[in-house]
Amino acid sequence: MTDNTYPLDISIHDRDTPFLLLDSSKLERNVARLRAHTARFGVPLRPHLKTVKSVEAARLILADGTGPATVSTLKEAEVFSAAGCKDLIYAVGIAPRKLARVVALLKEGTDISVILDSIEQAHAVARYSREAGVKIPALIEIDSDGHRSGVVPGDALLIEIGKILHNEGAELRGIITHAGESYHCKTLQAHQAMAEKERAAAVACADALREAGLPSPVVSVGSTPTAHFSEDLTGVTEVRAGVFTLFDLVMTGAGVCQTSDIALFVVATVIGHQHQKGWIMVDAGWMAMSRDRGTAAQEVDQRYGIVCSMEGEPLGDLIMIDVNQEHGILALRPGSQQTLPTLPYGSRVRILPNHACATVSQHGEFAVVRDGSEHIEALWPIIHGW
Amino acid sequence: MTDNTYPLDISIHDRDTPFLLLDSSKLERNVARLRAHTARFGVPLRPHLKTVKSVEAARLILADGTGPATVSTLKEAEVFSAAGCKDLIYAVGIAPRKLARVVALLKEGTDISVILDSIEQAHAVARYSREAGVKIPALIEIDSDGHRSGVVPGDALLIEIGKILHNEGAELRGIITHAGESYHCKTLQAHQAMAEKERAAAVACADALREAGLPSPVVSVGSTPTAHFSEDLTGVTEVRAGVFTLFDLVMTGAGVCQTSDIALFVVATVIGHQHQKGWIMVDAGWMAMSRDRGTAAQEVDQRYGIVCSMEGEPLGDLIMIDVNQEHGILALRPGSQQTLPTLPYGSRVRILPNHACATVSQHGEFAVVRDGSEHIEALWPIIHGW
Repeated sequence: MTDNTYPLDISIHDRDTPFLLLDSSKLERNVARLRAHTARFGVPLRPHLKTVKSVEAARLILADGTGPATVSTLKEAEVFSAAGCKDLIYAVGIAPRKLARVVALLKEGTDISVILDSIEQAHAVARYSREAGVKIPALIEIDSDGHRSGVVPGDALLIEIGKILHNEGAELRGIITHAGESYHCKTLQAHQAMAEKERAAAVACADALREAGLPSPVVSVGSTPTAHFSEDLTGVTEVRAGVFTLFDLVMTGAGVCQTSDIALFVVATVIGHQHQKGWIMVDAGWMAMSRDRGTAAQEVDQRYGIVCSMEGEPLGDLIMIDVNQEHGILALRPGSQQTLPTLPYGSRVRILPNHACATVSQHGEFAVVRDGSEHIEALWPIIHGW
Repeated sequence: MTDNTYPLDISIHDRDTPFLLLDSSKLERNVARLRAHTARFGVPLRPHLKTVKSVEAARLILADGTGPATVSTLKEAEVFSAAGCKDLIYAVGIAPRKLARVVALLKEGTDISVILDSIEQAHAVARYSREAGVKIPALIEIDSDGHRSGVVPGDALLIEIGKILHNEGAELRGIITHAGESYHCKTLQAHQAMAEKERAAAVACADALREAGLPSPVVSVGSTPTAHFSEDLTGVTEVRAGVFTLFDLVMTGAGVCQTSDIALFVVATVIGHQHQKGWIMVDAGWMAMSRDRGTAAQEVDQRYGIVCSMEGEPLGDLIMIDVNQEHGILALRPGSQQTLPTLPYGSRVRILPNHACATVSQHGEFAVVRDGSEHIEALWPIIHGW
């Protein structure tokens, strides 16, 4: 892909706060780890770029910098395609009015698959394929875990959709599923069972298509937890995951990573103290962190994030207990016996976020460092909009 | 201010979803209502532009389109100043490294005040004023309700900060407070009491400054609820409020407005159904709505928003019960006896958001209609970043 990084000569102590800090060395380690895991089974990764939303980050994440990849918006598809990534799945159920942009990408040479789970969508995709003179590649979404969308395994709807796509002008590519419920698994055994459930459902549906005389060259599975805990990928042709690239406190709480694996921080400045209350005020609120409270239902509620030193080490029990738009309140966890750290007016902290995808999307760019350096090497723009 | 609207000829049924819809007629009515209320007391509004983050919206909100106004970031200050709004308060406790940008605005002719609540900040502002040769206007923040930042009324710290500012090179402008706890008031009496508490605390602190021989020309109070329910503004020189311009479900739940006053919608397309579960899937998730769950603690939890027809009328008990990044799940409220509305694949809905500030910031621009028209008159860009 093309290189449009923005070289920069500034330290993390000098850039105006709040800003988003990415340790690209951690990102590379996270990617290498999962790539090695799925390679054991001979299955390639198709990383989901909805987490980083950055062409420059994608260059480090994708196998040869060009794909395959997964996207969550057509805007991402268009930006990544323009940057040279020509093998995409748009992994949100296709809306009829979006088919024109899909066809435009196909005609420009990007292999982009849509996903769907209904007769109505299959007819829309087949009809649009015929009208446009382009066989739109389509994957049938399977609901492997009751989480969200998809055809329930065993439902005759699967074959009906497959036949419409295959016989009426589209290109039936196969099966896709995402076991989003894996985010709520609490034990290694539960994670492994969820990964197997996801795999088995997808493979069974692909087999059902084949038994009906329909093609299913692709059997695409994945979520960050199931991707890491899979012990068997028989019948699977690719694994998708997104948040594993940066990781976050939700993934730490789910047992998928350590806090030291998290590549993403929000840097904030201390702007005040409410001494009687044990509060330290910073200039990062929900606008910088997001309103995501994904750890609220986990064993340890991290509120709006774990507070770290500017070296990236957690400051004991100090967390961001509450936020307003541009204010964050730092305090010790409820019940902590520790002493509030001394963080004078004007000092800086790094905050580990609950949900990397949500926090990234609040910012215009990543300030990128390597190996914990204080030197910002580049600013990488983040894609917004649809 | 300058006019950089983007004229457009498209209907709300044709623009790609999800997108942000603003009914500018409702915005104008909301602004006129509050302006009339505070005018009864002879007190001007200083609207907070952190909600709309739009130059074009500010033209409708500000008295003569130029100010006075409140901002939550220096980026907003710089954009609104460039657009001709030259009377600003930057209403987040000032960080030392941000003083250079404040002084740059002052030197360009923008009257921008900073706010602060500590000795350390007062010294920093006074020192920077002397070094820059510009008396930086500063307001002392008062904690009128225990909500967040500010000097507690009665604390001798107030006079100490005032003396540093006044005697050591800055310009002591007076007092500012924000009764953010008003968002949690549940009755008219509670709202009125909170408004009076906010007023009385600010006026008492201004009087304390004056008794110490210090100036306090400005006594600035406000939050959307206290601004609407104030019955006395004696001693107050200006009222600030932000979310009243657009309103949202949190303000509806707090009894400040009706759902029909809300000027903001997210438009989404139906992309699927999980019929057994009574779920309708749409292409707007938390990326379009935000993760804000401000109604969760209110009497009626609206989950991620109330679902309306494309005419803007609520569809009975249909709400957005859950979201993922680019997926929303619509379903009837828990316990509803209604029948799920028929919303076929490809149909569109408008969703009323929990928190206008949070939802706006997820988007690149407003699609603007007037008086419930289907015709989008303009796209107004939204300011991002810091």
